[in-house]
Amino acid sequence: MNYFDHAASSTIYPEVLDVLTQTMKDDFANPSAQHILGQNLQEIIEIFREDFLKAIGANKNDSFIFTSSATESNNTVIRGLSLIAGDVVLYSKADHPSVTVPVEFLAEQFNVTLKEIILDTNATIDIEKFSSFLNENVKLVVLTHVNNQSGVVSDIEALAKIVKEKTKAHVHVDAVQSFTKINFKLSSDIDSMSFTSHKIGGPKGIAGLFLKHNHKVQPLLLGGSHENGMRSSTLSYPLIAGFHKAMKITMENSTQSFSKASQLSEMIMAKLSQMISTIQFPFKSTSPFIVSFVLPGISSDIILRHLETKEVYIASSSACSSKIPGFNPSLFAMNIPEKFHKNFLRISLGSLTTEKEVEALIREFLDVWDNLKHMRGR
Amino acid sequence: MNYFDHAASSTIYPEVLDVLTQTMKDDFANPSAQHILGQNLQEIIEIFREDFLKAIGANKNDSFIFTSSATESNNTVIRGLSLIAGDVVLYSKADHPSVTVPVEFLAEQFNVTLKEIILDTNATIDIEKFSSFLNENVKLVVLTHVNNQSGVVSDIEALAKIVKEKTKAHVHVDAVQSFTKINFKLSSDIDSMSFTSHKIGGPKGIAGLFLKHNHKVQPLLLGGSHENGMRSSTLSYPLIAGFHKAMKITMENSTQSFSKASQLSEMIMAKLSQMISTIQFPFKSTSPFIVSFVLPGISSDIILRHLETKEVYIASSSACSSKIPGFNPSLFAMNIPEKFHKNFLRISLGSLTTEKEVEALIREFLDVWDNLKHMRGR
Repeated sequence: MNYFDHAASSTIYPEVLDVLTQTMKDDFANPSAQHILGQNLQEIIEIFREDFLKAIGANKNDSFIFTSSATESNNTVIRGLSLIAGDVVLYSKADHPSVTVPVEFLAEQFNVTLKEIILDTNATIDIEKFSSFLNENVKLVVLTHVNNQSGVVSDIEALAKIVKEKTKAHVHVDAVQSFTKINFKLSSDIDSMSFTSHKIGGPKGIAGLFLKHNHKVQPLLLGGSHENGMRSSTLSYPLIAGFHKAMKITMENSTQSFSKASQLSEMIMAKLSQMISTIQFPFKSTSPFIVSFVLPGISSDIILRHLETKEVYIASSSACSSKIPGFNPSLFAMNIPEKFHKNFLRISLGSLTTEKEVEALIREFLDVWDNLKHMRGR
Repeated sequence: MNYFDHAASSTIYPEVLDVLTQTMKDDFANPSAQHILGQNLQEIIEIFREDFLKAIGANKNDSFIFTSSATESNNTVIRGLSLIAGDVVLYSKADHPSVTVPVEFLAEQFNVTLKEIILDTNATIDIEKFSSFLNENVKLVVLTHVNNQSGVVSDIEALAKIVKEKTKAHVHVDAVQSFTKINFKLSSDIDSMSFTSHKIGGPKGIAGLFLKHNHKVQPLLLGGSHENGMRSSTLSYPLIAGFHKAMKITMENSTQSFSKASQLSEMIMAKLSQMISTIQFPFKSTSPFIVSFVLPGISSDIILRHLETKEVYIASSSACSSKIPGFNPSLFAMNIPEKFHKNFLRISLGSLTTEKEVEALIREFLDVWDNLKHMRGR
């Protein structure tokens, strides 16, 4: 199998699988239990929490909350700020639905005003226009570090700085596609950040939310006051331990994985450009783990089906946008003309992706492209 | 080890562990992905969903939503009904915090009126008083099938019937402690129900929410429209498969496990009563999986610490209430005098608990009781 959909969900590290198997078996107690079995697990969770804070460069008095998904992390912040009519939210329609849908809910439900971050032709943020929207009414700015479809990397430190110079808005960053992959320095201008485990070789069902010490976010899940009152629910020690292990592994190999992915993604772009004259790479400043392109003339779904028969797996658009037929609002916000939305493809790499796998991908891709010659229109 | 805290979190079935290990390794794709790896997983999830609907006696057009915890399931319903000022919610302070805290939030935030379900001296619901609170302003009634601290089983079918005779209220049932353990018939009077995996030998981090086909619940997690729009987030196929396996095993052995637990819990009550004259069993109509009692004269925490040294684990109060010092509002609602809140103990059995383990528990418990003679007040 040649799996190139790591941005949707990555394969799990063997070491993480070992941690999960062992902890699911042995560490079954409820970490909130009063007996020593529970207390011991809660203590280790606190050590893991500190490790996560350290990994992102946060302080000990900041919070790292374990949630079930990045969707939950994003919803917790966006819905938890209790914004009211007249408040302005700055966001991008190019972002993941777990950001755009709750933001648009605020407008519908509470008459919050939405301002859209404008992207330039390469799907990067137009700083001048971004800056022009900032005023004292802006209460929340939602940014994405690495866009899940385009792979575009935003300079979140610089953007957060501009926000704080002109407003007192809460700055939230979705860092799902960049966490442990793309280097960044957590500045004091960033108030919250979302992360997830299953994009970095960990299990699904566990994720993280960084909250700066002075945040004003109200919890979404109320109950037994777990996670310092910020997220009630029995803590899943095994999933947290698996997430922690995946974070440790990816952090340790981060520089090396980045170089490797850069080399492999350049190889993909070079070879495909060389052989397919009509291919378009519309984005710049992208993560090396995501190679997205437009292939005019043939539906991306047909390419997907043909690649599947060769056990090669890539994506035609975000797994989380797959329910939108035809028109893709994220791609539209990225200035991809509507007629090309059906021709969009994404190849995404994992930290363990090898040159051999990439060579096989290119070979099979070009083979499919060649075989579909008769079907290609314009 | 003699583990008797299954009501807080159960040990995991070996067969479930096998499912988890295999699926975490092999079934890593995102079930929302457009390629066949994702589509295949989504198809199996739909089969699992039907199995859950069948298991609880629901119809095919009803919904079974996979959530991350029973806390999330309860919050989804309680917060998702969009109740407004003037609406009345009927609930019990004896219930789990994941029910009481979101209900009390509705009162604070939206001026919803709360009416408390009154319990009689055995902590069972006083039907006459319950019925007297019902009128057209009641929009939500929250019931618990088996109370997590007392183990008291409520006749949810009869109660839901009374509600529907007098109101159009939504009837929500927390069935976390009864699911697959206590027999019940899902009547059409019940609108929603919460379940969780980690109390029935499955993994933590996955849970369920039954919603009747004509429900009016708004989703809590917004984003990629997973779960028919009712719960956005990447579905964790391995956790769902593990939960499904645990449900299958417990359902198949349900009658046998109930008989066994009945025999064992009666044995515990008989032996402890026989040897400890001051022991009080304040509850009636209880689940055989939960044996709760008051032991005047010595703090339950001291007993816990001594039992721990013998690798025997029981609970002094719900794991989810452990953050409330001294006074326990649930026990108070159950008519347990405040002076006894520190003397409350809970022994909870799993479906695999053996007679030998129970004998060891009784022996060690009586030994600790005997050794603490010098410390006992009264």
